[in-house]
Amino acid sequence: MDKKKIVATFMKQGARIETKARVSLKTKKDVALWYTPGVGTASLHLAKHPKDARKMSVKGNSVAIISDGSAVLGLGNIGPYGALPVMEGKALLFKSMANIDAWPLVLNTQDPDEIVRTVQAIAPSFGGINLEDIKAPQCFLVERRLIESLDIPVMHDDQHGTAIVVLAGLINAAKVVKKSLKSLKIVISGAGAAGTAVAKLLLAAGVKDIVLLDRAGAIYTGRPGLSGEKSELARLTNPRNVGGDLAVVIKGADAFVGLSGKGLLHAEHVASMAPRSIVFALANPDPEILPDVATKAGAAVVATGRSDFPNQINNALVFPGIFRGALDRGVRQITQATKLRAARAIAALVKKPSASRIIPDLLDTRVVKAVAGAVR
Amino acid sequence: MDKKKIVATFMKQGARIETKARVSLKTKKDVALWYTPGVGTASLHLAKHPKDARKMSVKGNSVAIISDGSAVLGLGNIGPYGALPVMEGKALLFKSMANIDAWPLVLNTQDPDEIVRTVQAIAPSFGGINLEDIKAPQCFLVERRLIESLDIPVMHDDQHGTAIVVLAGLINAAKVVKKSLKSLKIVISGAGAAGTAVAKLLLAAGVKDIVLLDRAGAIYTGRPGLSGEKSELARLTNPRNVGGDLAVVIKGADAFVGLSGKGLLHAEHVASMAPRSIVFALANPDPEILPDVATKAGAAVVATGRSDFPNQINNALVFPGIFRGALDRGVRQITQATKLRAARAIAALVKKPSASRIIPDLLDTRVVKAVAGAVR
Repeated sequence: MDKKKIVATFMKQGARIETKARVSLKTKKDVALWYTPGVGTASLHLAKHPKDARKMSVKGNSVAIISDGSAVLGLGNIGPYGALPVMEGKALLFKSMANIDAWPLVLNTQDPDEIVRTVQAIAPSFGGINLEDIKAPQCFLVERRLIESLDIPVMHDDQHGTAIVVLAGLINAAKVVKKSLKSLKIVISGAGAAGTAVAKLLLAAGVKDIVLLDRAGAIYTGRPGLSGEKSELARLTNPRNVGGDLAVVIKGADAFVGLSGKGLLHAEHVASMAPRSIVFALANPDPEILPDVATKAGAAVVATGRSDFPNQINNALVFPGIFRGALDRGVRQITQATKLRAARAIAALVKKPSASRIIPDLLDTRVVKAVAGAVR
Repeated sequence: MDKKKIVATFMKQGARIETKARVSLKTKKDVALWYTPGVGTASLHLAKHPKDARKMSVKGNSVAIISDGSAVLGLGNIGPYGALPVMEGKALLFKSMANIDAWPLVLNTQDPDEIVRTVQAIAPSFGGINLEDIKAPQCFLVERRLIESLDIPVMHDDQHGTAIVVLAGLINAAKVVKKSLKSLKIVISGAGAAGTAVAKLLLAAGVKDIVLLDRAGAIYTGRPGLSGEKSELARLTNPRNVGGDLAVVIKGADAFVGLSGKGLLHAEHVASMAPRSIVFALANPDPEILPDVATKAGAAVVATGRSDFPNQINNALVFPGIFRGALDRGVRQITQATKLRAARAIAALVKKPSASRIIPDLLDTRVVKAVAGAVR
């Protein structure tokens, strides 16, 4: 569908989610119970027993989807209105896949302190906070301060949803190419929110040789001008402490994970990788390399973030289940152990991984249950 | 139903509203259009044309219901969790009555500056802001600053919803007792958000003789220690500049409007009013006087805010229609002229007003349309 037609279709549709009454208001008795004077009694109860809000209100099954529009998909800083279709789309997925009542809240501020204060202020109505498309490094600070200050689960999906689904894909891709996951030499292009979280989760999964690249090339200890977050990444990754651009560090690598931008990976880069190489070109909507180009250049397994190619490595496999599990079990913290379990649970749903099937389909109804089961 | 049973019924019910998908996600094609890569195109369009958010997203039909829990019903400052059942109940009414998608946002702050900042931050997702149960005088500042700074309609329902429905009731009550509305001597008990707005709208409707009382008695020019808001009320109302408590000022009054607290109006007060008196005892859930007591003491027309007595003067007759009209017509400001038209439209729905029927039923489906039609 061309772009004009997509916009016209969204215009015709209007909202993709709405609210729905779960009780009927047909008689005076209904109104007296569910509105006034009935709500007065419920209100006095919750004033005394605020923890019962999870049982007696929307709080029990609801998630706020928060974005400041500073890093929307691969489109960059396009502000709150630019972010709104994505956040509303996530609300649609939350409902369709996990029966979670999520509402998009796009913010008229990109100041980390104000984002934190706003989310703290609106938190009482919600059972969870999904942060989305907030740029690095602000996203790290915002997430950490919210996790520390709120009594409900908070997850920045660009970081942890991406990390979980990438690890799930790599577990099965390694099986397909008959290499051990832990021994893979992995190059990650993009050291923003997603790249950082992917690197950390791969380390937690036992991967040893990871090299991250940002716009200035490989991140290594001693590179001039590294920020605090990137110094930490240099310390944690790149055991051979290599420098250079993508063309240099991709040589001999077993896997490429692209969380960067359109067209950054060229055929000659793929051709220089180790035999039976894995290419995850996850920039959205335009990947780092098109699947047919990567395959022709020698990649054995190729994945993208898109639904119109095989092997869709997409956060949508993760966030509905993570919050379903957290809401059902009253879990506040999404730990690294939870993320590892979730990745393994997703990978295990593909009984016989092959080059064209390393990850379950986005519409596979088993996924939410498997991921939710990993949250403890 | 006793209080324990009401709480148990709310516990069993859980949420009274939920979200609902308006498009189906059954095929890869659905996902490609409504999620990725389709949303990317919609996002780029809205980044360039933010005004189209009303046509292409939840913004077009959604209202945020905001409360800090500082003045919930007649129950006082019971905090965000105490407020949540009321706000969720309003969301239920918004949907059931006016097909508006409203979400309750109860706030973890009671600081007016923080309330303003929070609402400004979350406003891009919504088509309107319904402020609710925020105490006076903070509510005046919060509402004014939001109206000045946002490009969507903002209404503090405790003020303006109440004022509209009280005026509607008084228009018909005056007909029943065969007195002219403008000539009524009206005593308003309670000079908070509701009392202040009711007084101002009655003045706009041409009523001349209004006396407001707060806890210290009648508000008159020269009363020691009057705040800024109350000095203004003293100047605008009380043309005879009378002082004293309720027992004093109620003598000879044609109408009593109670927006204060349980049991404040006694039988002897009613007995001292002018012949064919009107008593609106609107404190919720417990009125200033019970209807049978007021009638026995001589009141000709009695109304309360409750659904289990005749003549329910309740904001629920107003807010769904006001926001329906504002959303449909892209109206930003709810002016005094709109409020007067809305009150007259509600009153006109009762063809032959009588002592037991001065106001349409809460479930009367004509009300939303009539009120929405008043918003221009």
